[in-house]
Amino acid sequence: MSVPVTGRLSADSGESAWHAAWLPTAAFRELGSRPVLVHGDGLLVDTVLDEVSRACARYGGRLWHGPPWPVDADLVLALRGAGPVPNAAAETVRLGATPAVNGTGDGALGDEGYLLTRASGVTVVLADAPAGLLYGMFHVVRLGAAAFHDDLPARRHRPALDRRMLDHWDNVALHPVSGQVERGYAGGSLFWRDGAARHEPARLRDYARLLAACGVNAICVNNVNVHDTEALLLTDRLGDVAEIAEVFRPYGIRVHLAVTFAAPVVLGGLPTADPLDERVRDWWAAATRRVYQRIPDFGGYLVKADSEGRPGPFAYGRDHADGANLLAEALAPHGGVVRWRAFVYDHHQDWRDRSTDRARAAHDHFAPLDGRFADNVIVQVKFGPIDFQPREPVSPVLAAMPATRLAVEVQATQEYTGQQRHVCYLGPWWSEVLRFRPHGAAGDTIADVAGAGGGLVAVSNVGDDPFWTGHPLAQANLYAFGRLAWDPLLDPGAILDEWIDLTWLPVTSGDPEALRRTMHAIMDDSWRTYERYTAPLGVGFMVRPGHHYGPDVDGYEYTQWGTYHFADRDGVGVDRTRATGTGFTGQYPPPWSEVYESRDRCPDELLLFFHHVPYRHVLHSGRTVIQHIYDTHFAGVEEVAAMRERWRLLAGALAPAVHDRVAERLDEQLRSAVEWRDQINTYFFRKSGVPDAHGRRIH
Amino acid sequence: MSVPVTGRLSADSGESAWHAAWLPTAAFRELGSRPVLVHGDGLLVDTVLDEVSRACARYGGRLWHGPPWPVDADLVLALRGAGPVPNAAAETVRLGATPAVNGTGDGALGDEGYLLTRASGVTVVLADAPAGLLYGMFHVVRLGAAAFHDDLPARRHRPALDRRMLDHWDNVALHPVSGQVERGYAGGSLFWRDGAARHEPARLRDYARLLAACGVNAICVNNVNVHDTEALLLTDRLGDVAEIAEVFRPYGIRVHLAVTFAAPVVLGGLPTADPLDERVRDWWAAATRRVYQRIPDFGGYLVKADSEGRPGPFAYGRDHADGANLLAEALAPHGGVVRWRAFVYDHHQDWRDRSTDRARAAHDHFAPLDGRFADNVIVQVKFGPIDFQPREPVSPVLAAMPATRLAVEVQATQEYTGQQRHVCYLGPWWSEVLRFRPHGAAGDTIADVAGAGGGLVAVSNVGDDPFWTGHPLAQANLYAFGRLAWDPLLDPGAILDEWIDLTWLPVTSGDPEALRRTMHAIMDDSWRTYERYTAPLGVGFMVRPGHHYGPDVDGYEYTQWGTYHFADRDGVGVDRTRATGTGFTGQYPPPWSEVYESRDRCPDELLLFFHHVPYRHVLHSGRTVIQHIYDTHFAGVEEVAAMRERWRLLAGALAPAVHDRVAERLDEQLRSAVEWRDQINTYFFRKSGVPDAHGRRIH
Repeated sequence: MSVPVTGRLSADSGESAWHAAWLPTAAFRELGSRPVLVHGDGLLVDTVLDEVSRACARYGGRLWHGPPWPVDADLVLALRGAGPVPNAAAETVRLGATPAVNGTGDGALGDEGYLLTRASGVTVVLADAPAGLLYGMFHVVRLGAAAFHDDLPARRHRPALDRRMLDHWDNVALHPVSGQVERGYAGGSLFWRDGAARHEPARLRDYARLLAACGVNAICVNNVNVHDTEALLLTDRLGDVAEIAEVFRPYGIRVHLAVTFAAPVVLGGLPTADPLDERVRDWWAAATRRVYQRIPDFGGYLVKADSEGRPGPFAYGRDHADGANLLAEALAPHGGVVRWRAFVYDHHQDWRDRSTDRARAAHDHFAPLDGRFADNVIVQVKFGPIDFQPREPVSPVLAAMPATRLAVEVQATQEYTGQQRHVCYLGPWWSEVLRFRPHGAAGDTIADVAGAGGGLVAVSNVGDDPFWTGHPLAQANLYAFGRLAWDPLLDPGAILDEWIDLTWLPVTSGDPEALRRTMHAIMDDSWRTYERYTAPLGVGFMVRPGHHYGPDVDGYEYTQWGTYHFADRDGVGVDRTRATGTGFTGQYPPPWSEVYESRDRCPDELLLFFHHVPYRHVLHSGRTVIQHIYDTHFAGVEEVAAMRERWRLLAGALAPAVHDRVAERLDEQLRSAVEWRDQINTYFFRKSGVPDAHGRRIH
Repeated sequence: MSVPVTGRLSADSGESAWHAAWLPTAAFRELGSRPVLVHGDGLLVDTVLDEVSRACARYGGRLWHGPPWPVDADLVLALRGAGPVPNAAAETVRLGATPAVNGTGDGALGDEGYLLTRASGVTVVLADAPAGLLYGMFHVVRLGAAAFHDDLPARRHRPALDRRMLDHWDNVALHPVSGQVERGYAGGSLFWRDGAARHEPARLRDYARLLAACGVNAICVNNVNVHDTEALLLTDRLGDVAEIAEVFRPYGIRVHLAVTFAAPVVLGGLPTADPLDERVRDWWAAATRRVYQRIPDFGGYLVKADSEGRPGPFAYGRDHADGANLLAEALAPHGGVVRWRAFVYDHHQDWRDRSTDRARAAHDHFAPLDGRFADNVIVQVKFGPIDFQPREPVSPVLAAMPATRLAVEVQATQEYTGQQRHVCYLGPWWSEVLRFRPHGAAGDTIADVAGAGGGLVAVSNVGDDPFWTGHPLAQANLYAFGRLAWDPLLDPGAILDEWIDLTWLPVTSGDPEALRRTMHAIMDDSWRTYERYTAPLGVGFMVRPGHHYGPDVDGYEYTQWGTYHFADRDGVGVDRTRATGTGFTGQYPPPWSEVYESRDRCPDELLLFFHHVPYRHVLHSGRTVIQHIYDTHFAGVEEVAAMRERWRLLAGALAPAVHDRVAERLDEQLRSAVEWRDQINTYFFRKSGVPDAHGRRIH
């Protein structure tokens, strides 16, 4: 039968109210202008049908779903085992049905994989499960015209990481301090407003499409800091969660909930939340059963426990394994997981106490528990030992728990990287982390660790802003996150190309290649540019306390937060060596335990994270630390000024709403970069007394 | 006729809900146990009658008001000219009625003065107006038994300052940043709660009694930062103000309103608030007429204009004289005044710009306008050039506008002096300011300047806390403010004695003299103690940005606020000299223009306010600056520890609620003082590299 081409086109009507991001209508031009055959059934196949039918309605193509078959389909999207496909496509489909294709092993495509090939003038996507067909279709969209030119050898595509998740730090009730979205820089929440669900499925559906198109398959819909109203999502307000799950399900995305460990007390009226108490276990089992009755594919729980004031098992003399296993037991019968955050440290540290080191905390707490967690526990570990700074070493916890499923957590929301007022493309940073080999050249990468069952997680950078992410260029971080979670070995520059191709080239009125070059020139190195004009050489937290925007070198120096730099008139940095410092370097396996321990071998960019050195210490670069500070801060500002000039040249090539939004933010980025440069340089000049070798102005 | 002794005793029922402060029932024991004659009529005489009748009801005395006269009155409170008083009192009254008494000039008592004497066994208070009788009665209360022992030579008492005002920075609506009371540390507002008037006259009446008993005769009932809801007090919500005025009127206190300069626009719907626009003048005249129809004794307007974002005349190319005179014109027919704050400065200063000096701003803006203000304009000047820091020089504006009525503004609310968690008795500081002679030894004092028509103003430290001021000992600041406004030459230690006698001695269960000694030991020097453990030598604003509690040496160093210390590895302080600095010293008349200009002659305690000096600069004290910093910070903490020990000894001598409240706050004060000591010492040690001469621990 031929699917009516007008079906559900009304879902497009929202495009005027919010930006299409990497799914503009025109991205479907190639697919939508051809005869397309979709073969198979299921909820996610319906999603594919819907996408294809809308594209065909727009661009004159035609969609078949089931017999009678066309003789001339250009694209076949078929579930293997759905039955025979006729004519030209048949041979290609047969090829894809063979077990071993393209040397990729056993030929299994799994729940999300697909096989993509083009031969005899037919492009074919085969999958074993509907989700694979959906991902394959988005692959065809990414390829654009290239999907329909030359032959493509059959290649199997499967995600390297099964779990690719976005954590929303969204509050249901407007929080007096953290607002509607904690550390959100893109307006309100897509899910909640002023204490209630928004009930706006059209926008959520578009969000789900964007996530599926870059590969995300899991979300958590509320803040890890679970306040009173949000606690009720598990019980009284479960219907709101179920409603969200309805919208995300057709895009292969499972919904998770952040829960409070104290739920049995605050919701259940029990006198305790002790994980070894029978009543507590029964309460969680019953509560979880009710969740799955409403949401059969519910993903699981996310828990921040005994961290920054949140309740946890410590109150009952239990450890984190006891706590996590309690919830795991409740979730296991239903196939759910508990994600237990390793972000546990003393947030009432005494700044005078130089022996306590916040960097050590996660390893100290969790490494000894390796092997004690249930199979469906995922310990969720921030990529670095402190807290999403623009430069940190990779967390040693990720090399210390081989018997535990570990998830790697990064921050798409730019809390410490410019808060979506600054261009800061994080793909290169995440890529560096994922490719890091904590055991040395012969060992696994961080991507391998995440691939062993825990996956990759990002704190979302999305809100109800028309551009989704406030800064239009920050969309690239969301896109890159999904793509790296699918394939951590992708080149961040190539991801940027995909994103530019999809998002901007279909809608530019200028020279596409010039647009691409300019975007790359602005974004490729923008993370390192951000690093240059902010905190140097691995020092962190030189930010304004509370909101974390803009410089304040001593802002956290004399506080309870364990985030110090110890700058004095002679030098700067934190001695974390085993020889003379906090011993944090000893949490790493060789060779890094030795590399970081050595002032001479330690990489420049992490020197002040691991060592306290004199201002005149000479880096591998040949420059002194103090001159490095001056040079990078002057350079960083110049780079931002150049970004701004480059962007000006794009006026006219993009819609004014887009161009103006980015231009305004680049103005602010330059103002802020100048402020960073001047405060950092002045601070260290006042302390060190060492003049700039080039005689530039330091205030 | 004999007034029934049970009248209005019910007003006492509130005493259990809030503290009696310096008017405990027992303070009226001497007055209330005697035959008392009150002679005269009027609203405030009714207040006297009410007070005396309640006291007599409690302590067995008897009150007469009008014939038949008693033969044996111990106390006569009489209006001169109210007619003959018989028997023993007659001679004394006759004496008081003579023009020249006790060498105090023309014998006029004025609206608020009174004559007090005791002879022939009768104590007599004479006044020419009812307010004088009320103040005289409170004087008798202060004297206690001493009012009824030996003869007292006739003495005339008149306030040195006609205007003795408290400004409440209370918001009607809960403000998202500043809360219900901006810079309030004593709970909510007595007047407003969550957007509406509280309508709690019983508590307000007790507040009015306390104010009258220490001499305050004016209040402003809303914040100088007038937000949307508060603007309406002038119009739609005027009834709430009238209701408050009803309560305060019987205690001789006139109510004022803070208004927004933009009122003609935001309330009147006019397109402009230009002070020279006829429609604007008409609007203010009409609005003011309506105010006086409701509140015939309304005091006037208080205005913060062109300051920290508030609207003002600058928007229309007019100056502050134009702005103030606009409101003055509207108020003049009704006898009201406009109080126009001189707190005007650039709050978007660039910290890199060393030529702009916030200290100069008020003088730069206002001194050239001297002589241009209408007679009923009072320019209200903060005592120091910056902003209520614990140590500043006296503002040069107070010596620069001889043709203008100037009010001196101090801050009873302890924004920068420990926020009513720290004991900090401000009487000595205010006394020092009031006794300062800006033109040198032969010239007027600041008290003389304030006495020329503008008066003294304090930002209130009162809220709905049961102890009124949060910290029970902070009540002394409110009391001392009123007393110093009445008589600026009072000794602050003697004021403390009055306050202790009234507030604590009647209710102690311990040794009264021990209590008095302990209170003095804790409070006498507490302001200097606070100075010692916080910012040294006249440097200000080494506080946490925003809330201003606790240390953050660089917290304001790289900000827009114009509040810098310029500490580097070599030295610290702000060069405000004419020779090499901002020239601020030139705003002073001689001799201070020369004294402050000279690094050698400048008083130690203000050295860093006026000069940038090396850490090894030797003070008049013989110590270096850096050693002074270390020594005072160690000493300050020791003094707080001693305070705490002293207070412990009072356990049992005071009600547990009082003792515990102070004890808790002393714990916090000690914790905070240690934090100040360690941060300040560590900061300056890290910068200077100079070790403590006594080898004490610096972190």
